[in-house]
Amino acid sequence: MPELRKDPIVGRWVIISTDRAKRPTDFARDQVKMKGGFCPFDPGNESKTPPEVLAYRTVANGGPPPERDTPGWRVRVVPNKFPALGIEGNLGRQAEGMFDRMNGIGAHEVIIETPDHNETLASLPEKRIEDVLWAFRDRILDLKQDKRFKYILIFKNHGEAAGASLEHSHCQLIALPILPKQVVEELEGAKEYFKYKERCIFCDIIRQEMDSSVRVVAENQAFVTLAPYAPRFPFETWILPKRHESAFENSASHIYENLAQALKTVLTKMDRVLENPAYNLVIHTSPVGETTNDYYHWHIEIMPKLTKMAGFEWGTGFYINPTPPEEAAKFLREASVEVAQPVGV
Amino acid sequence: MPELRKDPIVGRWVIISTDRAKRPTDFARDQVKMKGGFCPFDPGNESKTPPEVLAYRTVANGGPPPERDTPGWRVRVVPNKFPALGIEGNLGRQAEGMFDRMNGIGAHEVIIETPDHNETLASLPEKRIEDVLWAFRDRILDLKQDKRFKYILIFKNHGEAAGASLEHSHCQLIALPILPKQVVEELEGAKEYFKYKERCIFCDIIRQEMDSSVRVVAENQAFVTLAPYAPRFPFETWILPKRHESAFENSASHIYENLAQALKTVLTKMDRVLENPAYNLVIHTSPVGETTNDYYHWHIEIMPKLTKMAGFEWGTGFYINPTPPEEAAKFLREASVEVAQPVGV
Repeated sequence: MPELRKDPIVGRWVIISTDRAKRPTDFARDQVKMKGGFCPFDPGNESKTPPEVLAYRTVANGGPPPERDTPGWRVRVVPNKFPALGIEGNLGRQAEGMFDRMNGIGAHEVIIETPDHNETLASLPEKRIEDVLWAFRDRILDLKQDKRFKYILIFKNHGEAAGASLEHSHCQLIALPILPKQVVEELEGAKEYFKYKERCIFCDIIRQEMDSSVRVVAENQAFVTLAPYAPRFPFETWILPKRHESAFENSASHIYENLAQALKTVLTKMDRVLENPAYNLVIHTSPVGETTNDYYHWHIEIMPKLTKMAGFEWGTGFYINPTPPEEAAKFLREASVEVAQPVGV
Repeated sequence: MPELRKDPIVGRWVIISTDRAKRPTDFARDQVKMKGGFCPFDPGNESKTPPEVLAYRTVANGGPPPERDTPGWRVRVVPNKFPALGIEGNLGRQAEGMFDRMNGIGAHEVIIETPDHNETLASLPEKRIEDVLWAFRDRILDLKQDKRFKYILIFKNHGEAAGASLEHSHCQLIALPILPKQVVEELEGAKEYFKYKERCIFCDIIRQEMDSSVRVVAENQAFVTLAPYAPRFPFETWILPKRHESAFENSASHIYENLAQALKTVLTKMDRVLENPAYNLVIHTSPVGETTNDYYHWHIEIMPKLTKMAGFEWGTGFYINPTPPEEAAKFLREASVEVAQPVGV
């Protein structure tokens, strides 16, 4: 059973893997096999992953009902074969002298975005990206029923430099019995602002950014895509719903349609401007226990991994960004997006 | 002039380089030249760096006094040729709508640890490591006189994976007009604990760790080296003075001697166990304005860069550490340290 341990000084919880612990020599051997070879996410290899917890399949008229764990799916969600957290058991919160720990209880799932090994989230048709977003929502709604979980983190590591260990396009979901520090900080910052102004800080940012438009990358009916004012990383980009909504999973269905379009647009632009960069994508949303509130505004943050400087940053907690967001936004805004749909879609 | 900008939600200040802004194609070209070629830090190339602000030279008996910016130094400190911050000017704090910014005023210096291109901090004799520590102290004491600066950050990126852009062994110093977020968090956490217990949290940790010794890596008269209870990264290691001291630069001279020994020991052990890993080393010390206090305890944090997972971590703010600190400490504790001094020292 993995352990959750709390840093007593700054209050940060970390997961410590105790069962599959890495010994020093494991790190050298730990090279990611990205190109070629066997892929457990390819259709036909369904038995090589744990049994699916969700899949979207197209049922043929008059055909037999689809079978679980067989090909024919568009999106497939499976438990992570090497989960960072265990799903069974109690939290077992306890002290260890002056320290705090609990059992590493949680869910760790993989959302396989497409059966096609060579597609990326950016290359998928909008309708198929929408499927992926619905899969996020379905899994969140299901996992919210488990009262042990306080936060559901959905993220994507694209490319080896961003931490991906398999090439086949996928996202990950981690349901946690604690709030990650970054979430707590955002919530507290937003609450503080609300207390002072009685307005959502993200709504205010959206208004100001859309007025000046110098950091706006793209816009559609429901979303604005922008470079934040104080980005940690070059070409860091956020996608925010224009209307106040505190949780991703509360959104109306036209929101997912619009988000699919916004995502495809910005990822295509990034691929063009930055030549298919590795990136991390994280959904920032309200904790499970307070999904409807006035102060927090869910959004997506995308961070292309362009510099080696991350070493310095996680060492010092201090960020030096060599690209002003105004310039990053201009490059992305002006990049063309092919509108032609792939053949056969 | 670079800019300092504040994230309005979480209050994090970041440096945005506006003058040498990186365009998209700069990142692809930006490969570090690590092996071979011209090195501006080698003796004889002193004119290729900005003029030195400090150097330790051995003066021969009866010989001529040493000249600045010539060979013969043991440690040399120069302004960074491509500084992240500018030294001249006023802070110019101002609003930009709802946002906050100021001029990127600060100092950015390089501490060249040795004239020998092939030495590392770990391979230097203890006496020479002590020289490096004294250079840190001298520079801090000098820069503290500049009332614009609130914090002096000293760190080392060793190896390309840790963000080093030059191979020749060196540390960096950044004097900042703001407190980095990580510093604020540590200070606030330590203050909170002190308010509650009227004891320094680090002193309590040291006591508990030395009692159980399961996470202790090494110890000498003045320092304990340990794996923290909730490390973010595999083999993350802290060096803490046993006696309460809030600021690095306040220490008595035997402290630097002991620290040099502790540093050489742990870096040698890491090189042995982890096969010369890239790493970041950061001195955590009190802000310039409150260098004598009861609640904060200066220390050094060393983070070997072993995993590609940093991508995930800076995306989500959530850490998964595959190596329990008890195991990391055991490997490091049991690694032998060659005690033989290099010939000629």
